[in-house]
Amino acid sequence: MAEPPKLGRVTLVGAGPGDPDLLTIRGARRLGEADLVLYDALSSDAMRVYSPRARWFFVGKRACRQSIGQDVLNRLMIKEARRGHFVVRLKCGDPFVFGRGGEELWALAEAGIPCEVVPGVSSSVAGPALAGIPVTHRGVASAFAVVAGHHQAVYRPLLAALPTEGMTIVVLMGLAQRAAIATTLQDCGWNANTPAAIVIGAATAAAWRWTGTLGELGAAEVPNRGSEGSGTGAPGLLVIGQVVAVAGEIERLRNSRDDAAPVERHRGGR
Amino acid sequence: MAEPPKLGRVTLVGAGPGDPDLLTIRGARRLGEADLVLYDALSSDAMRVYSPRARWFFVGKRACRQSIGQDVLNRLMIKEARRGHFVVRLKCGDPFVFGRGGEELWALAEAGIPCEVVPGVSSSVAGPALAGIPVTHRGVASAFAVVAGHHQAVYRPLLAALPTEGMTIVVLMGLAQRAAIATTLQDCGWNANTPAAIVIGAATAAAWRWTGTLGELGAAEVPNRGSEGSGTGAPGLLVIGQVVAVAGEIERLRNSRDDAAPVERHRGGR
Repeated sequence: MAEPPKLGRVTLVGAGPGDPDLLTIRGARRLGEADLVLYDALSSDAMRVYSPRARWFFVGKRACRQSIGQDVLNRLMIKEARRGHFVVRLKCGDPFVFGRGGEELWALAEAGIPCEVVPGVSSSVAGPALAGIPVTHRGVASAFAVVAGHHQAVYRPLLAALPTEGMTIVVLMGLAQRAAIATTLQDCGWNANTPAAIVIGAATAAAWRWTGTLGELGAAEVPNRGSEGSGTGAPGLLVIGQVVAVAGEIERLRNSRDDAAPVERHRGGR
Repeated sequence: MAEPPKLGRVTLVGAGPGDPDLLTIRGARRLGEADLVLYDALSSDAMRVYSPRARWFFVGKRACRQSIGQDVLNRLMIKEARRGHFVVRLKCGDPFVFGRGGEELWALAEAGIPCEVVPGVSSSVAGPALAGIPVTHRGVASAFAVVAGHHQAVYRPLLAALPTEGMTIVVLMGLAQRAAIATTLQDCGWNANTPAAIVIGAATAAAWRWTGTLGELGAAEVPNRGSEGSGTGAPGLLVIGQVVAVAGEIERLRNSRDDAAPVERHRGGR
């Protein structure tokens, strides 16, 4: 009688914000070991270089629709692991930041499939960072909140409760709701002059940024390239708080120095 | 007359939560290119493998004291870059999550030194993840807040304003203040039964975890190995919210399956 196949395993890998260089070393190593990679953003395609022998299967969103449901995806991972395969579930950003990583871990634990998690660089921090915005800054923001912005019933009570000072708010998946989000915050006592930014695809060649105020955020025009949920791999995020002004000041300083001749930069030094 | 040296540059690199495997590919590449690495956690020592030719200089904390001040450090980076060197400032976690990365970027911009930021895996998300705790989970937490917990005057008004439901709180640098933090939250309406966790050195060989309730958090005993601010590279963090119970449930499922013989796992499958 044939032996049952050796049980495989699954690793949830955080792909980071989209640039293959921002994958972790362990993440790249797991891709190299994988038999099957289930990926959810087309930007992850660039990471195939780390994984020449695996089969790659897209399980993300196309034209705003999930290509396969979460239950089907969970069953697929379990089935493949039971066939003895090593499955990498490559997830945008970090697996546990709105990535349903917990649900996948749960389903795999329930099925008795060994599962490892490799954290990734979260877009919630790296998106602002790559646009020059530090989510915390001494004396300006000693905390930051990351909020899912796709359902008003979910984000409204959360945003309504957040302190209006000393904290940066980062809204993921909230690009389409930016007017409602800006209104919610102003209704809750946030000053319309609070600095705000929109960052799209910060880790991609198509990076785009807008900065202004909370009062202007709702009317800000964003490039119409289906940046959210369309599988272009360039999701957008909102940043609200005084750190956006810190970023502006750093940029102003940098530009003013760029005008000086390089040799000038040495004058007065050492 | 001798030419002035070509202007160098500085890259702020997020080292991730401590495990050299959780550095990004770009971070490792920058270490390989560096002339000088200024690092702030002894755990980063393990990353020297990526940087065989650079000089390494420790600028972090020893026995709870900063080895050099921020101003001195800024001047050192500027001086070295003006000498034509490529300086990597290797920072725990992500450079912009309580890392003073913004201040360093500001000083460098002011001095006209080219500066790049390479985001890292933030301990705020990866610490909980490596301890099995997803910071977000559908239907449980659609947001998370990351708060610096070392100064009561700073964290108290922030924690007091956070919603008591639907959000996970992660407190970095708050291990010593855990009793005061737990009291603050309960004073602000948080239920004493809210699940809570302490995670220390999640990405290190000395990983340690406690789970219990908010009511028990203040009295929880942690290993006395000077885990915070002593340069052991194993900072601690607190996680408060229902996601800690989700992690407990996943662990329970996993353990119950581990009791079954491997072949049993296949029964009923496909």
